Amino acid sequence: MLTCLKFVVLLLLLSSRSCDGLQFNDIDEEVELVAQSSRYGSLWPLPQKVQLSDVSFKLTTSSFRIVDAKESSAGPSCSLLQNAYRRYYDYIFENAKKSWQAKGKRTGPSELGELQVWITSADSECDGYPSVTSDESYELTVNQPFAVLKAPKVWGALHGLETFSQLVYKDEFGTKNINQTTISDFPRFAHRGILLDSSRHFLPIKVILANLETMAMNKFNVFHWHIVDDQSFPYLSRTFPQLSQKGAYHPYTHVYTPADVKMVIEFARLRGIRVVPEYDTPGHTQSWGKGQADLLTPCYAGSKPSGAFGPVNPILNTTYDFMTQFFKEISTVFPDAYIHLGGDEVDFTCWKSNPDIQKFMEQQGFGQDYSKLESFYIQKLLNIVSTTNKGYMIWQEVFDNGVKLKPDTVIHVWKGNAQQYKNEMANVTSSGYQTLLSTPWYLNRISYGQDWQGFYKADPQDFKGTEEQKKLVIGGEACLWGEYVDATNLTPRLWPRASAVAERLWSAKDVTDISDAFNRLSAHRCRMVERDIPAEPLFSSYCPHEYKGV
Amino acid sequence: MLTCLKFVVLLLLLSSRSCDGLQFNDIDEEVELVAQSSRYGSLWPLPQKVQLSDVSFKLTTSSFRIVDAKESSAGPSCSLLQNAYRRYYDYIFENAKKSWQAKGKRTGPSELGELQVWITSADSECDGYPSVTSDESYELTVNQPFAVLKAPKVWGALHGLETFSQLVYKDEFGTKNINQTTISDFPRFAHRGILLDSSRHFLPIKVILANLETMAMNKFNVFHWHIVDDQSFPYLSRTFPQLSQKGAYHPYTHVYTPADVKMVIEFARLRGIRVVPEYDTPGHTQSWGKGQADLLTPCYAGSKPSGAFGPVNPILNTTYDFMTQFFKEISTVFPDAYIHLGGDEVDFTCWKSNPDIQKFMEQQGFGQDYSKLESFYIQKLLNIVSTTNKGYMIWQEVFDNGVKLKPDTVIHVWKGNAQQYKNEMANVTSSGYQTLLSTPWYLNRISYGQDWQGFYKADPQDFKGTEEQKKLVIGGEACLWGEYVDATNLTPRLWPRASAVAERLWSAKDVTDISDAFNRLSAHRCRMVERDIPAEPLFSSYCPHEYKGV
Repeated sequence: MLTCLKFVVLLLLLSSRSCDGLQFNDIDEEVELVAQSSRYGSLWPLPQKVQLSDVSFKLTTSSFRIVDAKESSAGPSCSLLQNAYRRYYDYIFENAKKSWQAKGKRTGPSELGELQVWITSADSECDGYPSVTSDESYELTVNQPFAVLKAPKVWGALHGLETFSQLVYKDEFGTKNINQTTISDFPRFAHRGILLDSSRHFLPIKVILANLETMAMNKFNVFHWHIVDDQSFPYLSRTFPQLSQKGAYHPYTHVYTPADVKMVIEFARLRGIRVVPEYDTPGHTQSWGKGQADLLTPCYAGSKPSGAFGPVNPILNTTYDFMTQFFKEISTVFPDAYIHLGGDEVDFTCWKSNPDIQKFMEQQGFGQDYSKLESFYIQKLLNIVSTTNKGYMIWQEVFDNGVKLKPDTVIHVWKGNAQQYKNEMANVTSSGYQTLLSTPWYLNRISYGQDWQGFYKADPQDFKGTEEQKKLVIGGEACLWGEYVDATNLTPRLWPRASAVAERLWSAKDVTDISDAFNRLSAHRCRMVERDIPAEPLFSSYCPHEYKGV
Repeated sequence: MLTCLKFVVLLLLLSSRSCDGLQFNDIDEEVELVAQSSRYGSLWPLPQKVQLSDVSFKLTTSSFRIVDAKESSAGPSCSLLQNAYRRYYDYIFENAKKSWQAKGKRTGPSELGELQVWITSADSECDGYPSVTSDESYELTVNQPFAVLKAPKVWGALHGLETFSQLVYKDEFGTKNINQTTISDFPRFAHRGILLDSSRHFLPIKVILANLETMAMNKFNVFHWHIVDDQSFPYLSRTFPQLSQKGAYHPYTHVYTPADVKMVIEFARLRGIRVVPEYDTPGHTQSWGKGQADLLTPCYAGSKPSGAFGPVNPILNTTYDFMTQFFKEISTVFPDAYIHLGGDEVDFTCWKSNPDIQKFMEQQGFGQDYSKLESFYIQKLLNIVSTTNKGYMIWQEVFDNGVKLKPDTVIHVWKGNAQQYKNEMANVTSSGYQTLLSTPWYLNRISYGQDWQGFYKADPQDFKGTEEQKKLVIGGEACLWGEYVDATNLTPRLWPRASAVAERLWSAKDVTDISDAFNRLSAHRCRMVERDIPAEPLFSSYCPHEYKGV
C-alpha cells in the first residue's frame, strides 16, 4: 500500500563530518529519525479519524472529475469551489492541464471516476468570508463508484479537497492511485495562523500569495499580516496617502496598493484563510511619523527637542482624530471581524523626556507610572476601534498592564520562556479572555538541526488551568518576523517548519509520535516541492522531483 | 559620489518585538550596524589598493564597449574573455541585451566609451585551467578617453571585470555612472574555496552553475565538490557505472553524467574557478558498497556477519585494484592538479568486529591500534593516486594519524574549537605542509542573527608560528554540508554569508572594519539579488529591485 512513499524518502543515518558532537551541540534533545512509510501515508496534518484499506482505485486524467454532488447547496455558481476543483485536479495530476478538457471515458472496474462534493448546509457560505466560528469540518469517503466529500460549509470542503489530494499516490507504473478510505475531520483549534512581517523587509505580492497557497496545503486559516512597523509603512492608505509616500522604503515599488490588498484578501478567501491586519501602536510606529506630522512624541535632550521621536503622542486630540479616521478606513478595507492592534514593547524613555507629557501625567494623577499613560492611550484606541464594530486582538502587554478590555478581546501571548508563557496563558484564561499562543513558534529564530521537533512538541493547552480555561485557547500563530527574511529566503525558512505548528493546531491532542510525524512530514515536504514551493528538507533525503528553482 | 548607494540600504535600528533580550541571546558578540555609504561604494571583496575620485563618467548601452586592447596577447579567439565581456556588459546594464548590437555612437565629453582589456603576458592562459599558482592580479584604471584593465593572465582580467562592474552605479536619472578610479589588486590567499555536498541531497546542475556564477562575483576560485558520501553516489562512473546505478538516490534523475561533469568544469573554468572533486575513503562510503561487492568491510555480530558494512575493506587486494582503476578515471575526468581524498572520521567498530581484519592486524603487528590499519590503507591509496600525477588534499585526521605524505600535500583543517584549530594549523605548518582552513567557516551551521560577522573575523593566519609557517597557509574554504540544504534553500543560505569568507581570503589582512564591511556587503548582496541570485538580507533593509522568485 502507498508504495510510492518508499521512494519519497530514503534516509541514511550515519556518522558524518557535520554530524559529530561538535556540530550537534545545540540539538541534544532532538530525536534522529529514519524515514519510513507511515501507515497514514503522507497525510498532513493528520485528520481526526482515518480508516484506510488496502483496496486501491486508479485515477486517470481523461475520466476523473471533481463535481458538485446533486444534493449540494453550492452549485456551478460557487466560483470558490469551481476554482478549488481545478486547483486540486492540477495538483493531483501534476499540472496536467491539457487533459482537463478531454472528453470523459467510461471508468474501468477498478477506477475512481468522480469525487462528488456535497455542501450539506443550506447556506454554503460560498461568497462569504471565513471567520473564527466557521465550520471547517468535512467527511470524506473514497469508494466505488465514486468518492464523496461532505461538508456543512465550503470551508470544510476546501480542507477535504486538500486531504483527498494527499491520499493520491503514484504506483510503479506512474499511474495515480487512491485507496478506499473513510475520513472524518475537523480542527482542534479554530485559529491557526501565520504571521508575516512586510515592514522589516517588503514582501512582493507574489511571495505573499505563494505562502497563502502553502498555508492552504497545511490547513492554516489565518494570515496575520504584520503590515507596518518602525522600519517601513508599505500600506497605501486612501485617507492618508502620505503615510506610505514618506514611510515606505520606496513610494512606488515598495507599497501595497488598495488593489494589491484586495487581491491578497480574495486569494486568501478562496483558500479559506482570514486576513487579520496588524497596525501596531503606540510603539513600533517610527515609519508612521514620517508622513503624519505631530503623530509621534518629540523626545527631549535636556530642555530642548532632540529631533528624535518616540511612540505615538497620547496627549493630543489630533492623535485620536487621526486614529479614528485611519481605523475607519482599515475596518472597511479588511473584511475580517478582527483587527490586531499590537500594543507591545512601548519604550517610555521618550515620553519621560518630554515636558508636555510630564505635565499631562501630573494633571491626570499618573505619578511616575508611565504604564498608566500607555493604558490611557490604548483605552482610547480600543474605544475608537469598537465604534467600527470590529473585534480586536492585542499582544499580551496590554492585558498585563491591566487595560480594560471587551470580553471578546483575543490576547496574543508571545513573551517569555516555557514556564513564563504557560503562566501567562493561565492568567489570561483565568481572567476569562480568549487567547492565542505564539511564544514557542517564533520561526524567525533558527538553529542548526531539526528544530521542527521543538515546534511540534509545544501544546497551547499545556498549562495549569480548568477545562473552562483550556477552552478559551482558540489556537496559535507561527511568527516569521522580518529582520532576516525577504523574498530570497522566506519560503524555505517557513516551510516545512510551520507545518509542524499546523499539525499541532489541527490534529487531535494525542497526535504526538515524532517518528510517525517525521515520516509523514518528509513526504508532505516533497509534495510541497512538487507543487513548486521551495520547502526545505528535514534531513538527508531526496524527493522524486527536486525543486526547479535556484 | 556614489549617490545610488544611499538608496540601496536603509536601516533603522529600533527596538522590535523580535529583537529583545530573549531573541538575541545567542548573538551577544555581534555588532548591530546602521548601513551607510562606504567610501568604497559596493566593492566586495575590497581590492588591495583603491584610489577613487569624485569625477564621474557616464556609460551608455549604445556606445560603451568592452574590447581587447590592441597590445593584448588574448584576441577575439579567446572565447573565455569574449564570453566574460558579454556577461559583464549584461550585468552593467541590467540585462539590456538588445543594445549590445546597436551601432556605436560617438561618446560625449563626460562619457566613458570603452574598457580595454589588456593581457600583458605572452601566454594569456586563455585555454588553460586555473591552478593554485595562477596569477590572478590585475590593474584597473578608469579614466577618459577609456578605461584600461591590465592583467598578466586571463584570470586577473576576470576578477578585474567583476571589479569594474562593481564600480558602476546609477545616478538619480537612472544613468549608469562610473568614477575615475585606479585599482591595483591581487588575492591574499591562492586557494579560496566553497565546498558543496551533493550526496546528502542531490543538487541539480542548475543550482551548481548558479553558485559558480555567484562564486565569481565574490572572487572565489575553488569549487570543492564533495560529490559522493555515505548517503548517495550521484557520480556516474564510466568504469564502474553500477556505483551510481545502485548507489545514487535515483539512477537516472539523481546522477551527474560525464556530460554534466564536463559542463560544470567548463562553466567554472570560464569564471576562473578550479573544480576539486572529493572522493572520501575509507569512511563515508556506504553508498559505494551498493554497487561494488566486497569493497566494504562486513561487520560481525559475534561470530557471524551482521549484514551491515563498515569502511572500505583494507585487507583485500581487490580493494586496491578497484581504487587504481577508479582514480585513474577520476584523474582524467577532472583536469585540476589536485584531488581531495577525504580520510576523515573513520569508525573502527566494524573493523574491530571482523575476524579477518583481526587476523590481518596480528600478521602486520598492529596490535590493537586500528589507526595503524587506517594509515596502512591511506598510504596505499596515496601511492595509487600519486601514480596518476595528481596532488592530493586530505582532511586533517590523515596528518594527525601520522601517515607519510608527499611534501606537496594540502592538509585541510576542519575540527575543533578556535584554540584547537589554531594549534592544528601551527602543527601542520611546523611540519612543513601546506594547509587550508575550514573550521570557522562551516556555513551549514546556522544561528539567529548576523553570523557573517563571526565568519568575517576569523583569520587563517591567526595562530602561533613563524613567517615561514604563515606562508604555508594557502587559504580556506567555506563549507556548506548537505544534511539540511538542497535546491530549495542552498543559495540564500550560502550568500551573502560566504561573501564574508570571500573578503577574508582575498583582501588585505588589515581589512577588518565590521561597520564598513556591513555597508559594502549590504550593497553587494543587493547587487547579487539584482543578478537573480537569492542572496538573503543581512538585516532590516530593502533593495531597489527585490528578488523576483518565491
